[in-house]
Amino acid sequence: MNRIFFWTTMAGVPISLAGAILGWEPTMMFAIYAITILALASYIGRATESLSIIAGPRIGGLLNVTFGNAVELTISIFALKAGYLTIVLASLTGAVISNLLLVAGLSFFIGGLRYKRQKFNIHDARHNMGLLMFSVVVSFVFPYIFSFRLTSGEILALSIGIAIIMLLLYFSALFFRLVTHRGVYAVESEGEDDEEPEWDKRRAILILALAAVAVAFVSDQLVDTFESIAESFGWSEVFIGVILVAIIGNSAENITAIQMAVKNKVNISVEIAVGSTLQIAMFVTPLLVLLSLIFANPMLLLFTREALIAMILSVFLIIMIINDGDTNWFEGLTLLAAYIIMAIGFYFM
Amino acid sequence: MNRIFFWTTMAGVPISLAGAILGWEPTMMFAIYAITILALASYIGRATESLSIIAGPRIGGLLNVTFGNAVELTISIFALKAGYLTIVLASLTGAVISNLLLVAGLSFFIGGLRYKRQKFNIHDARHNMGLLMFSVVVSFVFPYIFSFRLTSGEILALSIGIAIIMLLLYFSALFFRLVTHRGVYAVESEGEDDEEPEWDKRRAILILALAAVAVAFVSDQLVDTFESIAESFGWSEVFIGVILVAIIGNSAENITAIQMAVKNKVNISVEIAVGSTLQIAMFVTPLLVLLSLIFANPMLLLFTREALIAMILSVFLIIMIINDGDTNWFEGLTLLAAYIIMAIGFYFM
Amino acid sequence: MNRIFFWTTMAGVPISLAGAILGWEPTMMFAIYAITILALASYIGRATESLSIIAGPRIGGLLNVTFGNAVELTISIFALKAGYLTIVLASLTGAVISNLLLVAGLSFFIGGLRYKRQKFNIHDARHNMGLLMFSVVVSFVFPYIFSFRLTSGEILALSIGIAIIMLLLYFSALFFRLVTHRGVYAVESEGEDDEEPEWDKRRAILILALAAVAVAFVSDQLVDTFESIAESFGWSEVFIGVILVAIIGNSAENITAIQMAVKNKVNISVEIAVGSTLQIAMFVTPLLVLLSLIFANPMLLLFTREALIAMILSVFLIIMIINDGDTNWFEGLTLLAAYIIMAIGFYFM
Repeated sequence: MNRIFFWTTMAGVPISLAGAILGWEPTMMFAIYAITILALASYIGRATESLSIIAGPRIGGLLNVTFGNAVELTISIFALKAGYLTIVLASLTGAVISNLLLVAGLSFFIGGLRYKRQKFNIHDARHNMGLLMFSVVVSFVFPYIFSFRLTSGEILALSIGIAIIMLLLYFSALFFRLVTHRGVYAVESEGEDDEEPEWDKRRAILILALAAVAVAFVSDQLVDTFESIAESFGWSEVFIGVILVAIIGNSAENITAIQMAVKNKVNISVEIAVGSTLQIAMFVTPLLVLLSLIFANPMLLLFTREALIAMILSVFLIIMIINDGDTNWFEGLTLLAAYIIMAIGFYFM
Repeated sequence: MNRIFFWTTMAGVPISLAGAILGWEPTMMFAIYAITILALASYIGRATESLSIIAGPRIGGLLNVTFGNAVELTISIFALKAGYLTIVLASLTGAVISNLLLVAGLSFFIGGLRYKRQKFNIHDARHNMGLLMFSVVVSFVFPYIFSFRLTSGEILALSIGIAIIMLLLYFSALFFRLVTHRGVYAVESEGEDDEEPEWDKRRAILILALAAVAVAFVSDQLVDTFESIAESFGWSEVFIGVILVAIIGNSAENITAIQMAVKNKVNISVEIAVGSTLQIAMFVTPLLVLLSLIFANPMLLLFTREALIAMILSVFLIIMIINDGDTNWFEGLTLLAAYIIMAIGFYFM
Repeated sequence: MNRIFFWTTMAGVPISLAGAILGWEPTMMFAIYAITILALASYIGRATESLSIIAGPRIGGLLNVTFGNAVELTISIFALKAGYLTIVLASLTGAVISNLLLVAGLSFFIGGLRYKRQKFNIHDARHNMGLLMFSVVVSFVFPYIFSFRLTSGEILALSIGIAIIMLLLYFSALFFRLVTHRGVYAVESEGEDDEEPEWDKRRAILILALAAVAVAFVSDQLVDTFESIAESFGWSEVFIGVILVAIIGNSAENITAIQMAVKNKVNISVEIAVGSTLQIAMFVTPLLVLLSLIFANPMLLLFTREALIAMILSVFLIIMIINDGDTNWFEGLTLLAAYIIMAIGFYFM
């Protein structure tokens, strides 16, 4: 697997560079950019993991948070700069939906084909459920509901206020999990601490830096192909954001989560799916709202009705599925069925 | 009880036949048709039960599924053919609401008058909760939300897509419960396997066939009285569908569920109430959507706002009530109070 | 603490009287009325507690119910009489939100600063969760959803019907907890029965009567300052109702709940926060609907969209937070963050 990512990166980055300069056919380049980003994402993931092991769990946790959704964040910033506000909000929606339904669904389904019942730490999961309810349901619904009665200036002020509160609560959550309540809710120490880092510190930082620069460049190019893609396939901007960009941005997590489920570590699959959603909802989204104030068009924390409902339904469904503390192939299939229904819906929009 | 059903059938079928041919007064005939269907439903139920015992749990499970909501399905097909799309959707709504609130409510209340606390298998219940969330909340809400932005052709395509996915997931659920995970979540084998069938195989099939034909005929007549009923009592089509037709269609399950609760087998009451709702939502509803393509007017998977909210609220309420793993009279009363509130609401529409 | 309340009452009541007669500056008087009501609320609370201990748990439970939200009820009746229907509905909304998010949030947060994990009786909490779902979600949402299709006369009839059902279910809940299922779900008897009453029976009744008369008078004056407050600060009626009046009305509960959490009796904090919400939703609200029929303008059971969503989100969030059976500082902070978001939203309205 790692060899495939190596050769994809070695081929993908120069081809992306060449294609961007020579102006090759956008549809083909969209595919090349997407595959290259996927390969680079795996490098960012592995470098972060090595650094986490070296730095210990506390700073490691912070690193994971910062770089965990680096790809989504990078794509979103370039899309924001280019004025594609609709696509940014759509891709955030897509990240939430595809983490909760596609990543978790595939993990539970494929893991469930091998194991009859896979158990996970229900305490951690419930902690995260409360945060999903807070972020996706309370924080995203509230500005939408009030938007009908407020002026756009008031909605902007409300967006900024909520974004700041979400970020503060997000860092409090890190402080809670990494400092004050570290290990309080742990079921067993799974002896993962004796892991060896893949790369040493210097090498990991170098790879992280190079991969980040490359992702930034390729993402910038990728964003420029959106319009051509929309035209040639007749897809709406919303479908591109919710489904395509989200699948590209989440592919690294997706692969890791499935691998963990197949190794019967479904605990980590749940952590990836839900934790990644929380990073998107409580960290990436409010950060983009605040960053957008620098650019010409400020981004309101205002999803469309369809996006909002899709995210809320995903949250309620995963809560119901996860509430019993174990998973099986059918629970995975239920999540996948919901994902397909949503994909069909967004396709028609 | 069985004697009452016998004589009701013996009297009801010929009177229905006579009334239909001679064109007797519709209001009176509505009552006679309703009582006759109730009696016939008990025969279908008992014949299916006998066949289930003979055929063993796997095929028995399939039979239960196929004939469990045979009455609702038959009434709905005739109403569909007659073009009463509003009543069909309303009666599906009513079946969901009355199973979750009325059937479960009466069982918990009456059972709770005799026993202080009645426990049931929380694992099965939670499995079903996930499916309720998938079917009623995700699958029904999604086309509604998207309907504002889509053309009616796109809504039809979305309806058909969702209907197919729901049916596939429904059969996967059967495969899961009857094949791959049979007994995995069972708390105890309740020694029910040594039950004697009421009728032998030939007799059961004969009774099933006769009762099915009779139900089909009487349902066809019943549907024709809807208009007169609506006029003479000043009831809306929605009220007839949501409240009246649902009570008639569910009466057999209602009686069985209460009997089980009184015998302190509240496990089976929950299974009837929730399982029957799932059959309606995941099997009957999508099947009717697909069947309607044969008739002149295709039926969209598009409930009214009021119907949708009523179903969603019922699902959330039963989830909250059932989540603690036991029942008592007050939990039953809470469900009944919610049912009465909804009935009043639909009465005014 | 009690001395502060004593001197506040001794000073507050005469100053309120003087200010009301001499027509002092409304903004200043608003503050004085608010502080006086807070002090009087503590007397009502302590007198009720003494009477409860003397009268035993059954009648004590009834007394607690009747006087527990006496202040909210009194303010609301005077506001209703003065025709401030918007403020009444807003203050009911505020009572629900601030009990669930502010009272519970502050208790969990401050209690959590001292104790790592605080456990409570999950069975009682789940019983109450079902009732929150019934009252706030089912009973409040239903008339709203139907209001688009009904005439105002029909909405009034629906409101009255729902109000009666809610009151009946509320008294059934008391009957359930105090009579048929007393102690059935108790985890341990906490030996609270050997408490000494602060005052004897005669004294408690006298104090209760005097405090009730004083609260009634000061509330009447408080309501008259709303318009001036709205004007001078540029606050909307909704903000005054949802945030200001609710904080004044709930301050007594708030202080008690925090004190209990600090004493590691978070069980009682949960009971106060959720139990008080249920009193507002299932007892005070329907009672006001019925009482309003006496006055010129009947009050419909019809919250605004924003108020309804705020209450529903609060219910879902507290359910998620409470579902795991223990609390910590971070869970408190999450509730407080949601409260601040809502306060900002209502501020802009």
